[in-house]
Amino acid sequence: MRERVRIGIFGASGYTGAELLRLLGDHPLAEIRALTAERQAGKPVAEVWPQLAPYGLPDLVRIQDVDVGGLDVVFCALPHATTQAIIRELPRGPKVVDLSADFRLRDPAVYEATYGHPHQALEAQADAVYGLPEHYRDAIAHTWLVANPGCYTTAAELPLVPLLKRGLVQPAGIIIDAKSGVSGAGRDAKQGSLFTEVAEGIHPYGVATHRHTPEIEQCLSDFADAPIRVTFTPHLVPMSRGILATIYVRLAAGTESGDAHQALADAYAGEPFAHVLPFKTLPATRHVRGTNLCLIGVHPSRIPGEAIIVSALDNLVKGASGQAIQNMNIQLGLDERTGLGQRPLFP
Amino acid sequence: MRERVRIGIFGASGYTGAELLRLLGDHPLAEIRALTAERQAGKPVAEVWPQLAPYGLPDLVRIQDVDVGGLDVVFCALPHATTQAIIRELPRGPKVVDLSADFRLRDPAVYEATYGHPHQALEAQADAVYGLPEHYRDAIAHTWLVANPGCYTTAAELPLVPLLKRGLVQPAGIIIDAKSGVSGAGRDAKQGSLFTEVAEGIHPYGVATHRHTPEIEQCLSDFADAPIRVTFTPHLVPMSRGILATIYVRLAAGTESGDAHQALADAYAGEPFAHVLPFKTLPATRHVRGTNLCLIGVHPSRIPGEAIIVSALDNLVKGASGQAIQNMNIQLGLDERTGLGQRPLFP
Amino acid sequence: MRERVRIGIFGASGYTGAELLRLLGDHPLAEIRALTAERQAGKPVAEVWPQLAPYGLPDLVRIQDVDVGGLDVVFCALPHATTQAIIRELPRGPKVVDLSADFRLRDPAVYEATYGHPHQALEAQADAVYGLPEHYRDAIAHTWLVANPGCYTTAAELPLVPLLKRGLVQPAGIIIDAKSGVSGAGRDAKQGSLFTEVAEGIHPYGVATHRHTPEIEQCLSDFADAPIRVTFTPHLVPMSRGILATIYVRLAAGTESGDAHQALADAYAGEPFAHVLPFKTLPATRHVRGTNLCLIGVHPSRIPGEAIIVSALDNLVKGASGQAIQNMNIQLGLDERTGLGQRPLFP
Amino acid sequence: MRERVRIGIFGASGYTGAELLRLLGDHPLAEIRALTAERQAGKPVAEVWPQLAPYGLPDLVRIQDVDVGGLDVVFCALPHATTQAIIRELPRGPKVVDLSADFRLRDPAVYEATYGHPHQALEAQADAVYGLPEHYRDAIAHTWLVANPGCYTTAAELPLVPLLKRGLVQPAGIIIDAKSGVSGAGRDAKQGSLFTEVAEGIHPYGVATHRHTPEIEQCLSDFADAPIRVTFTPHLVPMSRGILATIYVRLAAGTESGDAHQALADAYAGEPFAHVLPFKTLPATRHVRGTNLCLIGVHPSRIPGEAIIVSALDNLVKGASGQAIQNMNIQLGLDERTGLGQRPLFP
Repeated sequence: MRERVRIGIFGASGYTGAELLRLLGDHPLAEIRALTAERQAGKPVAEVWPQLAPYGLPDLVRIQDVDVGGLDVVFCALPHATTQAIIRELPRGPKVVDLSADFRLRDPAVYEATYGHPHQALEAQADAVYGLPEHYRDAIAHTWLVANPGCYTTAAELPLVPLLKRGLVQPAGIIIDAKSGVSGAGRDAKQGSLFTEVAEGIHPYGVATHRHTPEIEQCLSDFADAPIRVTFTPHLVPMSRGILATIYVRLAAGTESGDAHQALADAYAGEPFAHVLPFKTLPATRHVRGTNLCLIGVHPSRIPGEAIIVSALDNLVKGASGQAIQNMNIQLGLDERTGLGQRPLFP
Repeated sequence: MRERVRIGIFGASGYTGAELLRLLGDHPLAEIRALTAERQAGKPVAEVWPQLAPYGLPDLVRIQDVDVGGLDVVFCALPHATTQAIIRELPRGPKVVDLSADFRLRDPAVYEATYGHPHQALEAQADAVYGLPEHYRDAIAHTWLVANPGCYTTAAELPLVPLLKRGLVQPAGIIIDAKSGVSGAGRDAKQGSLFTEVAEGIHPYGVATHRHTPEIEQCLSDFADAPIRVTFTPHLVPMSRGILATIYVRLAAGTESGDAHQALADAYAGEPFAHVLPFKTLPATRHVRGTNLCLIGVHPSRIPGEAIIVSALDNLVKGASGQAIQNMNIQLGLDERTGLGQRPLFP
Repeated sequence: MRERVRIGIFGASGYTGAELLRLLGDHPLAEIRALTAERQAGKPVAEVWPQLAPYGLPDLVRIQDVDVGGLDVVFCALPHATTQAIIRELPRGPKVVDLSADFRLRDPAVYEATYGHPHQALEAQADAVYGLPEHYRDAIAHTWLVANPGCYTTAAELPLVPLLKRGLVQPAGIIIDAKSGVSGAGRDAKQGSLFTEVAEGIHPYGVATHRHTPEIEQCLSDFADAPIRVTFTPHLVPMSRGILATIYVRLAAGTESGDAHQALADAYAGEPFAHVLPFKTLPATRHVRGTNLCLIGVHPSRIPGEAIIVSALDNLVKGASGQAIQNMNIQLGLDERTGLGQRPLFP
Repeated sequence: MRERVRIGIFGASGYTGAELLRLLGDHPLAEIRALTAERQAGKPVAEVWPQLAPYGLPDLVRIQDVDVGGLDVVFCALPHATTQAIIRELPRGPKVVDLSADFRLRDPAVYEATYGHPHQALEAQADAVYGLPEHYRDAIAHTWLVANPGCYTTAAELPLVPLLKRGLVQPAGIIIDAKSGVSGAGRDAKQGSLFTEVAEGIHPYGVATHRHTPEIEQCLSDFADAPIRVTFTPHLVPMSRGILATIYVRLAAGTESGDAHQALADAYAGEPFAHVLPFKTLPATRHVRGTNLCLIGVHPSRIPGEAIIVSALDNLVKGASGQAIQNMNIQLGLDERTGLGQRPLFP
């Protein structure tokens, strides 16, 4: 019988940390060995996450108090920038899946331009593999360090990569109008995330400046003939979970929206977590709530030569913690689906 | 002193009917004379709209029991298609503001193609004026029949008309990604509008086929050099009120997004209900909740030669009942703002 | 190895039916053989429940087309009154868990007084066992027909039964102020369950007349020295799932609220799905979302001799489909927890 | 013609401050002269409250920079404890309506026991009148300092005072199970008020210890023969506005619930903002959203000798800023309804 996987979660007091704990409860090999949270070190899980009280989890500790050598896997769910300092100092040995943005951008210049400071762990970054399993699976299997993609970016990349790869959409003019739930903003107390500020309304934010944009462009460019630049507009929706990306593309000459649909269906035919809906059927975020699925639909536009593609995923699962476990499974040589069979919670 | 305006509301059991009653409570000249609701005729308002119980409103009756001759104004908030049959038979005399889609499309062929049956009141339709006050004010002042615009369409037209009029955006490639609250679907019991089906999620609907599209195109074409075709994608958001339209445009050669912003600011400088925010500031629906305001913001795109324009309004007010009262005021020669001074309800 | 359990779900187009399908996805022995929905017979599951499309479930059929003899278990999630007619005619053989109210009241007179018509399947009802596993476990194990408790009633009974059994609370003066999510009202299109009618507000309903009251009283009386009458006030909360019951009790002479807490903790010490929180810690519905847990907290009142007890559960799981599976497991002699290990989805 | 009322709002960056600005927009005599916010001094209103941008309001300043002598009225919407220090130093002259809890408790010992420190402005407090207009109207008219009641307390007091006054309910055994929207927690960034922490769930808080309890008991005791002690249990509901209080009372011997209803209807027959619904009709918070109304309903209990009374109000209006304006109107000798005619925003 397969041995248990000894897991540490660095940054267990945020939503992606808690979501790892929820999902790993279904992973038959997962053994949670260490949970860290600097400011809440010493507390039992029940105090930080009452919903996890019944599951016999270890108390929160500081990272410095973790026996990293005794771990097989570290999930790093720390804030941006903190992460690279931690990973730089980490003893080699455990597989690491980093849920932050720190290791996603390969070009240090792009990193610096995006985040306003030089990268502090370039050596580790050279080993990092972008953790979108459907398109970087082999490399993921061979690295110790996975840079788990962002939630918006997964929703943008899964529908677009196969189309760019096969030259079915024009590289110019891609517009990604994305809508996200509030958990994407994390658990820190911020006025802008208060119930009263978010409920009963919708608004755009980070327009033309959102930091996920270079990540999307890096990934899409990996699979296109030319560098890709996109228009990316995020909106905040009064829901806790979910991302919907409505993507407007100009089709390549001679391509119909039905061709684009077929190409996506073919590309993801064997994938456990990327599902293409029937032509003209479009997804809803609530149909993937709590699951590691990304649903993709394709619809013809009224404008000839254009198509509308819609993707939906749960930002905390396929957009974060579920995808992280999927990456871990690949790194460990396990069945990629292990622990990720949750069905959608609806309503 | 100015005389009272004797008002009838046909279809007072729907949300736009109730919203007329809310807003007219602030109109110093409004006198509610008749409220109709065919299936609920005979009931007191308190039974259909408990929130309106305290305001001494007349009981609901059938249309046939209304003394139309004794009315100065009829607001028609009836279902599509019913409306044209009613208005066709209405004795001339009162001003009519129709909130349905029945009289918005001027071309009978477009009407028939959109709604699947020939128009049944072409004579009345010949008199109908499209009730977007900011752009059809004079004609509104001289007609007995106003075709009050739809909620999505107002949100799309107000930002685009001045830009097309001045040739600042290209006529091709306009994409309107719109997000609406649930009240747009009305008060009829539908599974798709249940709380459980709508909360905690977002999804697109009516993609490439929504019936508001020809209306948007008719209006935009009125002010452009060439017929306009748009991409229009509505989404359902878990909120009761509000429409946000995120509009992607290609600027005319030599035009910057700042120019587009300035042109909009100039166009609406004197308007009471269309406000242009400072350049790069974008609106939120919750900042117009309960008001007759449409807020408009302009932001540069990352893609040179493109711009992102966002508009926000309350679909039941500027998108329906408030705009209807604004139209009535114009028809009656009153100050357009009368009764429409409500400030936003936030949070 | 244990054989598969062949399962039929009668009434698979309602929320409790869908929830059975979600939960049974985690049950290693469950084999879904038949799904019925009279009005939607012939449709694939994907059409009725898009979120269940990926799971290879059988198409919906009519009950008459089900081979009941080939089933080990029937979950009956049909509307009230329909149920008893169906179960009366059902060939004996499969275990039946009925999620409706039809077989919960043992006294035909009480049934008739509550539902306004005589019971139509008294023979079957004589075999029915009330399916609150924590208190009727042995009888459940030996019956073919389980009357699965209501959601409100489970939330009221679990905290009160042990206290009444041990005489720690006075039989008179029990007040149950309950708050429910909207899924309790089902998936039928009803005006009162529209998003717009439910969001951003709270209201009581069914005050002093709710049909769950006699069921609560029957169960509590089973464990008390005297017949119990309760005050039960349900409220509708703008959330899809969850029931919170705030229960006000008068303690027996000499009993402190700490004693009541201890008694509950003792009573449920070995129970997998009834958890008693530390003294003075009170639960939240969102901490049990998607799980079969009932959390219970006890707090002293400011009024000497009184205590406040709060319970929380997910109305679709421990309040319906999860409890139904728990009952099935007991009937089949399986580990009661099988398939019910889901952790809470939060946020 | 009546002169303008020159108004200052101290603490204009919180929700009650913003709500005063919304409501005073409808007050024909109100002239906003000064808005303060210590940490945001120097900013335009548009930056703190985008929804109020269109209304030409003065910039935010520090209290020390306000010419208090030039004001007729000061609304004090400052945090607890800060308030008493400010009011102590305020030059006499303007009428003051204080929305904090600082001046509500008349007994310094009760104040100290409740808030954990001695009161710092006992001289001013001696002049303070509890601002529940329906029951302290004359005293309000003659004081410079009104202690505006809390939101929960108004919802509890309006239904109970007339019944206690007339001896129709027993002084013992009153249970107030209250449900509040999130705006009651203010606009400060707190983890517990995040959308993600509040949406899709309900939970109790402050059970048996909430600081509004002594205020309720002081007011009820004012109108009862004996000191009143109550059970008061607040709950947090996923809505921005609204309080619903479900109140359980034991009727006096010989009193029926219909008598209680009649007494309430009589007591509030002439009141503009306290409405008693028909017997057995119970209110919903969404029917008073945005208004200064408190709706009250009475229902018989199943338990003989008991009744269930439900009240609903908007915590930011009748529970705070609307009631404050009502008090100002009384202090100034204006018609109490001035500026408070808003109709409910529904849906």
